[in-house]
Amino acid sequence: MKFKAVKGTRDFYPDVMRLRNYIVDAWRRVSLRNGFEEYDAPIFEYLDLFTIKSGDEIAEQLFHFTDRGGRRLAIRPEITPSLARMVAAKINTLPRPIKWFSVPRLCRAENPQKGRLREFFQWNVDIIGVDGIQADVECIFTAVDFLREVKLTADDACVRIGCRPLTVASLEMAGMPEDKIEAALALLDKRPKVTAEVFIKLATAAGLDEKQLAAACALQDCKSIKEIQELMDGRENIAGILDDLRELMKRLEQMGIGDYCQLDMSIVRGLAYYTGVVYEVFDRKQSLRAVAGGGRYDKLLEIVGGPAASATGFGMGDVVLGILLDEKGKLPEDVLAGMLDFFVIDGEDGTFEKVLEVVAALRTRGYAADYSFKRQNIGKQMREANRRGARLAMIIKKEQQGDQPEEFTASLKNLLTGEQRDGISITDFLNQPTLIP
Amino acid sequence: MKFKAVKGTRDFYPDVMRLRNYIVDAWRRVSLRNGFEEYDAPIFEYLDLFTIKSGDEIAEQLFHFTDRGGRRLAIRPEITPSLARMVAAKINTLPRPIKWFSVPRLCRAENPQKGRLREFFQWNVDIIGVDGIQADVECIFTAVDFLREVKLTADDACVRIGCRPLTVASLEMAGMPEDKIEAALALLDKRPKVTAEVFIKLATAAGLDEKQLAAACALQDCKSIKEIQELMDGRENIAGILDDLRELMKRLEQMGIGDYCQLDMSIVRGLAYYTGVVYEVFDRKQSLRAVAGGGRYDKLLEIVGGPAASATGFGMGDVVLGILLDEKGKLPEDVLAGMLDFFVIDGEDGTFEKVLEVVAALRTRGYAADYSFKRQNIGKQMREANRRGARLAMIIKKEQQGDQPEEFTASLKNLLTGEQRDGISITDFLNQPTLIP
Repeated sequence: MKFKAVKGTRDFYPDVMRLRNYIVDAWRRVSLRNGFEEYDAPIFEYLDLFTIKSGDEIAEQLFHFTDRGGRRLAIRPEITPSLARMVAAKINTLPRPIKWFSVPRLCRAENPQKGRLREFFQWNVDIIGVDGIQADVECIFTAVDFLREVKLTADDACVRIGCRPLTVASLEMAGMPEDKIEAALALLDKRPKVTAEVFIKLATAAGLDEKQLAAACALQDCKSIKEIQELMDGRENIAGILDDLRELMKRLEQMGIGDYCQLDMSIVRGLAYYTGVVYEVFDRKQSLRAVAGGGRYDKLLEIVGGPAASATGFGMGDVVLGILLDEKGKLPEDVLAGMLDFFVIDGEDGTFEKVLEVVAALRTRGYAADYSFKRQNIGKQMREANRRGARLAMIIKKEQQGDQPEEFTASLKNLLTGEQRDGISITDFLNQPTLIP
Repeated sequence: MKFKAVKGTRDFYPDVMRLRNYIVDAWRRVSLRNGFEEYDAPIFEYLDLFTIKSGDEIAEQLFHFTDRGGRRLAIRPEITPSLARMVAAKINTLPRPIKWFSVPRLCRAENPQKGRLREFFQWNVDIIGVDGIQADVECIFTAVDFLREVKLTADDACVRIGCRPLTVASLEMAGMPEDKIEAALALLDKRPKVTAEVFIKLATAAGLDEKQLAAACALQDCKSIKEIQELMDGRENIAGILDDLRELMKRLEQMGIGDYCQLDMSIVRGLAYYTGVVYEVFDRKQSLRAVAGGGRYDKLLEIVGGPAASATGFGMGDVVLGILLDEKGKLPEDVLAGMLDFFVIDGEDGTFEKVLEVVAALRTRGYAADYSFKRQNIGKQMREANRRGARLAMIIKKEQQGDQPEEFTASLKNLLTGEQRDGISITDFLNQPTLIP
């Protein structure tokens, strides 16, 4: 019997794992320097936690099961419901501000496609309890700080920024009944991804009035705040929203990331719970799915049984990002190879015990050190040193002078430059860290 | 409706997450410096992968489910079967040696107890394809290198080393039929944890002959290789096994970890697949469950459909380890607090935009920098800086000289020493990294 990984999941062999770690380490580094603290939640939760927000039909897209105690559980498809649950449980005692990030492993029972797998990792960055656009600015800055960290320029990727309340206002202006608005938003979210024909078909299928939708479509096509202002002229309560949007764009500019950011009213986000600014990160050519998406979601804590609390944040998956980095040639070379500081070689019979002692001492001092499991000639061990990506090869030899006790010496060869030093006393080497190049 | 985490799982709030990261980061650091490469597998696998090795009854201890495609899947309770599957699939093309580690998230559908949860993290360290005791030595050294890394001394914890083939030989010597040996090993594994009375009851329940068991019990009580030799005298094929065991203990001594290691023939390990040296890491007083356990398992790859290949390794969970570190007071203080390099404060009206610019520049240079979301007086912002654990507070002010354009300057206060420098030009500060203390 031969076993395989389940379709849509990945085996992370060391070469693939190095790429995952390159991404995850950068996510964590950027989060911490932007003042976010890491959290995590269990990999499975009560199924209801996911259905309460998105409806029972979401269960189809989840891996769910009943445990021996009869609990209906599900592997998490996203971490935001867990975040809302955790914050709601301790809302009065958590130190503020609540600037949290996480890198959860998530699973969705979907059909695998390019950029969409059944198991993936997603960077989540959220700020809870802060009203006002500065919290949104923080999240967007953090996303762009990451793009820069992995060498994606403003020519490679950008943040497209929309505004949910404006889209809702345009639908209301056109007379869309309130109970149709959620369906209309879900449909508008799909609009940039389908042809005009398909869009109309979907609208009809969803029972939406085409003329009412048209107003929102006109908003989606606006390219500037001025255009929006002209289109929405006369509508009450729009001025404040527009002022905020203008200020948001200005602050992104002040923080030096204006070139990565652009207004794009066609960004709506599919999920029902967004209430403010929304955004998605795309490759500039938009040849791939969104790399990241997020926005303000001020009602979610209440939905999961917590108090009213404002919230904003985004998620970025590892799958599309990995494709983009690969396509743009942005994966650094040293991600593609393992690294050892030292490879220690027994240069003659009777020196293997000394090899073990040296390797142990080097590791204990924090150096990555290894040796061959095979007792073989120096040439073969040297080849293993090279294959393992070692920086330095250390060849241990014995020296006998007269009737003095046996002494061990080493030759140290830099495998990058070829430079070599001989006759190094092992005792000195281990006692004087400055001898280590 | 209020949601909670499922019983036996943990919410990793930032303070708890820091502890998890402290442990996981040390696991990874120690693995890499010992020459191991990281891998991972999917969180769920075909259920059969787990039952083929351990029998159908193991399914009761797993979270398992059937997906929409009718596949019977399970969340992994251990990663070794996935490791065996992955290595078996590429045995002929993987670079040697196969020295791999992983830090999987694992789930078991057990009743939670002290040191045993339904979701946990486990460090796994394995060497595949290397016969001979040096591979076992490498794994044990790596385990101890970690203990030292987290400041657990030989007085805090130790590795107890047993030998499965000797235990099997002692059972065979006493006439135990071959088909009873697996049950006998499982029972002997429990012996140190139960009273003599309970042991006899369990033996009767398992249909095992008490006198046949007694031979293995006598072996379990041996304290040295000499005692084993005397007990097993005359038995064929024992000499080679004893030579290996002696050499193993000698090499652990040579690598400087003899004080952490002791022979203990009562270590048998419960799982059926061990074939050689076995060991467990315990707190010295043995007041807790085992912190880690492992050994040689040369047949597992064949069981999951791969070729014959020798294998050895261990697993160390985060739960018992966390309890031990806490009990011994070995958790470093800075794990208990977040850390920021800079907290930037707007010292007067009209400086907030400059705060954003400075924060953005600091973060982009890799510093952890943050600021208050609230526009409030310096005292309150300073309190936030302290609460956030910032190393430096930077207060931005405006300076107007005659009709020159407005200039921004900063005071930089070291919050640890109280030392303060004033009148720093923001432009200079950002252009000269040496000014950053």
